Amino acid sequence: MSSIKFYGDLKLGILGGGQLGRMLIQSGISFDITTSVLDPNRDAPCHAFCHEFKTGSLTDYQTVYNFGKTCDIVTIEIENVNVQALKDLEREGVTVYPQPHVIEIIQDKRKQKEFYINNSITTSPFILTENKADVAANTDFLPAFQKLGVGGYDGGGVKRIKDAADAAFAFDAPGLLEKAVDFDKEISVIVARNAAGEVKAFPAVEQVLHPEHNLVDYLFAPSDLTEEQEEAAKALAIKTTEALGIVGILAVELFLDKDGTFLVNEVAPRPHNSGHQTINANYTSQYEQHLRCILGLPLGSAAIKRPSAMVNLLGAEGYTGSVIYEGIEDILKIEGVNIFLYGKKVTKPNRKMGHITILGDDIVSLKEKVALVKKSIKVIA
Amino acid sequence: MSSIKFYGDLKLGILGGGQLGRMLIQSGISFDITTSVLDPNRDAPCHAFCHEFKTGSLTDYQTVYNFGKTCDIVTIEIENVNVQALKDLEREGVTVYPQPHVIEIIQDKRKQKEFYINNSITTSPFILTENKADVAANTDFLPAFQKLGVGGYDGGGVKRIKDAADAAFAFDAPGLLEKAVDFDKEISVIVARNAAGEVKAFPAVEQVLHPEHNLVDYLFAPSDLTEEQEEAAKALAIKTTEALGIVGILAVELFLDKDGTFLVNEVAPRPHNSGHQTINANYTSQYEQHLRCILGLPLGSAAIKRPSAMVNLLGAEGYTGSVIYEGIEDILKIEGVNIFLYGKKVTKPNRKMGHITILGDDIVSLKEKVALVKKSIKVIA
Repeated sequence: MSSIKFYGDLKLGILGGGQLGRMLIQSGISFDITTSVLDPNRDAPCHAFCHEFKTGSLTDYQTVYNFGKTCDIVTIEIENVNVQALKDLEREGVTVYPQPHVIEIIQDKRKQKEFYINNSITTSPFILTENKADVAANTDFLPAFQKLGVGGYDGGGVKRIKDAADAAFAFDAPGLLEKAVDFDKEISVIVARNAAGEVKAFPAVEQVLHPEHNLVDYLFAPSDLTEEQEEAAKALAIKTTEALGIVGILAVELFLDKDGTFLVNEVAPRPHNSGHQTINANYTSQYEQHLRCILGLPLGSAAIKRPSAMVNLLGAEGYTGSVIYEGIEDILKIEGVNIFLYGKKVTKPNRKMGHITILGDDIVSLKEKVALVKKSIKVIA
Repeated sequence: MSSIKFYGDLKLGILGGGQLGRMLIQSGISFDITTSVLDPNRDAPCHAFCHEFKTGSLTDYQTVYNFGKTCDIVTIEIENVNVQALKDLEREGVTVYPQPHVIEIIQDKRKQKEFYINNSITTSPFILTENKADVAANTDFLPAFQKLGVGGYDGGGVKRIKDAADAAFAFDAPGLLEKAVDFDKEISVIVARNAAGEVKAFPAVEQVLHPEHNLVDYLFAPSDLTEEQEEAAKALAIKTTEALGIVGILAVELFLDKDGTFLVNEVAPRPHNSGHQTINANYTSQYEQHLRCILGLPLGSAAIKRPSAMVNLLGAEGYTGSVIYEGIEDILKIEGVNIFLYGKKVTKPNRKMGHITILGDDIVSLKEKVALVKKSIKVIA
C-alpha cells in the first residue's frame, strides 16, 4: 500500500514555457502539482498558469542551475537547455527527468545518429560533416539533407543539398549529411517509460507534412499501417526508448520506406506535436503520461478512445501582429471539433498558435473534416 | 465569416473558487480566456490557476458588484451568490450567465418547486411550510423530506420527517415538505443552452447515492435506461432548461419512479458533480460546454466516447487534517483510471477532495472497477 502526501507539496520545475509546458501544466492541475517555469519570454504561454514563473535563459548554466535548486523534480518541454547545469543538479540530488545524459545525446543530431548505429537502431544512411568544405567534398553522397548538429528546431537547421552547386550554400558548421529517404509514410510513436522500467507505447500516428514548410500539416490516429507494421513501428520505438533508458516520454519519428522498413528519423525527449490529439482521443494523454513517468507513478493506458485527426493552427503567410482567429465559430460547429489556443498574442507566418483536434468514427470522414477545418479557419492579424 | 480576436482580451469572472471553478479554468486554458475568481477562502482550489484571485464574500452585495464591474462576463460555480448585485451588473451592461433571474429561482427550493408547477414540469408532490409549527400541522403529509428554501448544499438543509414525533426536530424556517419518491433510479441530465437558443443534452447519467451520507457515491454513463426512457429523461431536462431560458449549463436531477415517470428533483445552473466524467468520456466536457454557452459559441457534441464511471474521493470518517491519498498508486494501476485532485490541503469527513474517472468498454466491468477503486483508496490525514 502506497501513501502519497498532498502533491501540492511537490514542486515541479519546467524548463521552457511554451505550449507543451502549458498543456503539461493543464494536465498537472488534476495531479495537484505545484509548478515553476523558466522561459526567456515573460509572456510565454505558461506564464499565467504556473505557480511561479521565472524569466531567464534556458541555455545559461547559472540560470538553469539556480532555477533547478528550488525544485524537487525538473523536466523539460524543449531540449535546447543547459545540460551541464542539469548534470550538476542531478549529482546534487535534484530529480531530473528526462535525465541530462539523454537530453545531451538528443540535443546533437550527430550524437543521435551515432547512438542509433551503436544500438543497432535502423536509421537512414548518413555521414558526419564538420563544415561546408566537408559537404562539398562528399558530392558522391548527394542528393542529401544537411542537418546542423545543434540548434535546429521546427524545420530550421535543415537544407536540401542536391548537387555540388548546392554545396556552396551549405551550413558552415558541424552537422551531417543524411540520405533523403523515399518514404511511404511518416509515422510517430510516443513511448513512455518510468523509473521502474515500465514501458508503454501510444498507437502509431501518421503525420502529413505541409508541402511547402517543413512542419506537420495534420496527423491522424490510428494510422493506416497494417497490424504487423504497427507492431514493428512500436517495437522500434520501444527499442530506442529502452536503449536510451529515458524516464519520461520519448516521441520517436519514423519513416516507413518503400521496402517496408522503419527507420528512426528523429526523437524528442518530451511531449510532442504529434501527441496533441491524445488529450481528447486516448485514455491517457501524452501530458498525463509524462507526469506519471516523472512522478514515479504507474503508466496509464495509451489506448485510443476514438479515431482522431489533429491540425496545427499556424499563423497565415503575410500576417504579423495581434492575432485574430478568423472563422473559429465556423469550425466549432463541426461535430467532434475541440480547439486549443496557446495564448500567444502575436502571430507570424507559420507560428504554431494552437491546434484543433477532430474526433470521429473513421479516418475517411475525419480527413474530410480536416479539409473543411483548414478551409474555414485562418490565423491573421 | 466570424472573427474573434485573441480571447486573452476577454476577462471571465467566476463567482466561487472551488473544484467546479478549477475544472472550468482548466478547460478554459484551451480557449485562452483570462479568468478572475472571487472566493472567501484564499486557499480555494482555483487560487493558483486563475489570472486574478480576489478574496471576499459571495453573498455580500458590494463585494460581488465591485468584482463584476472589472469583468466582461460573469459566471458562477456555486449558486449561493448575491443576486441583486448580479442584476445590477446585468443592467449596467456586464454579461451575466447564467442570468440572475435564473439563479434567483434556483437558489430557493420553494421558488424552484413553484416554477415546476407553473411550467407543467413533473416533480414530486410538496407543500410549502413557513416554520416548524407548519410542519407539525401537516402530519397527514408525512412521511416526507423537509427541505430548507435557502441555504442547503451538498446534502445539508434536508431532514427526513416520518411522523409527528419527528416534526419536533424540524427546521424552524421557510421550506417545503416533499413526498419521498419511491424511485427506481436517480438520473442526471446536463443540458447546455447558448444565447442563440441552441440546446444540447448530455446522455443521462445514473447516480448511485452513498447509503449513509446524502452524497453521490458513484455514477455511470451511459445509464441503464431504455432508449425510450433516455429520450423521456432528456425531453424533461430540455423542457426545464428552455422554460428557465438559461444561458449556460443546467444539471437536472431526476427521479425515475416505480411507475416509470420522471420527476425533476433539483436543478443546478452550473457544472455539476454528475458531469465530471464528461472530461474524459464525452466529445465535449461539461466545462467546455459551459464556456461555449457563455462565450456565445456553437455547442459541442455531447456524445459519449467511452462508457465511464465516476467515484467521488471523499475524506474518510475519523480523519481531519493535512490530506494523504492512501493507495493512489494502486488505483492508477487499474486500466482506464484517471484521477482529479482538487488541491484542498485539509481533509475532513465526507469532504469532496477529488474524483476518479474510470473508462472502459461496458458498465458491468466498470462497476467491478468502482468496487476495486473504493477498496483501494482512502483519503486520510
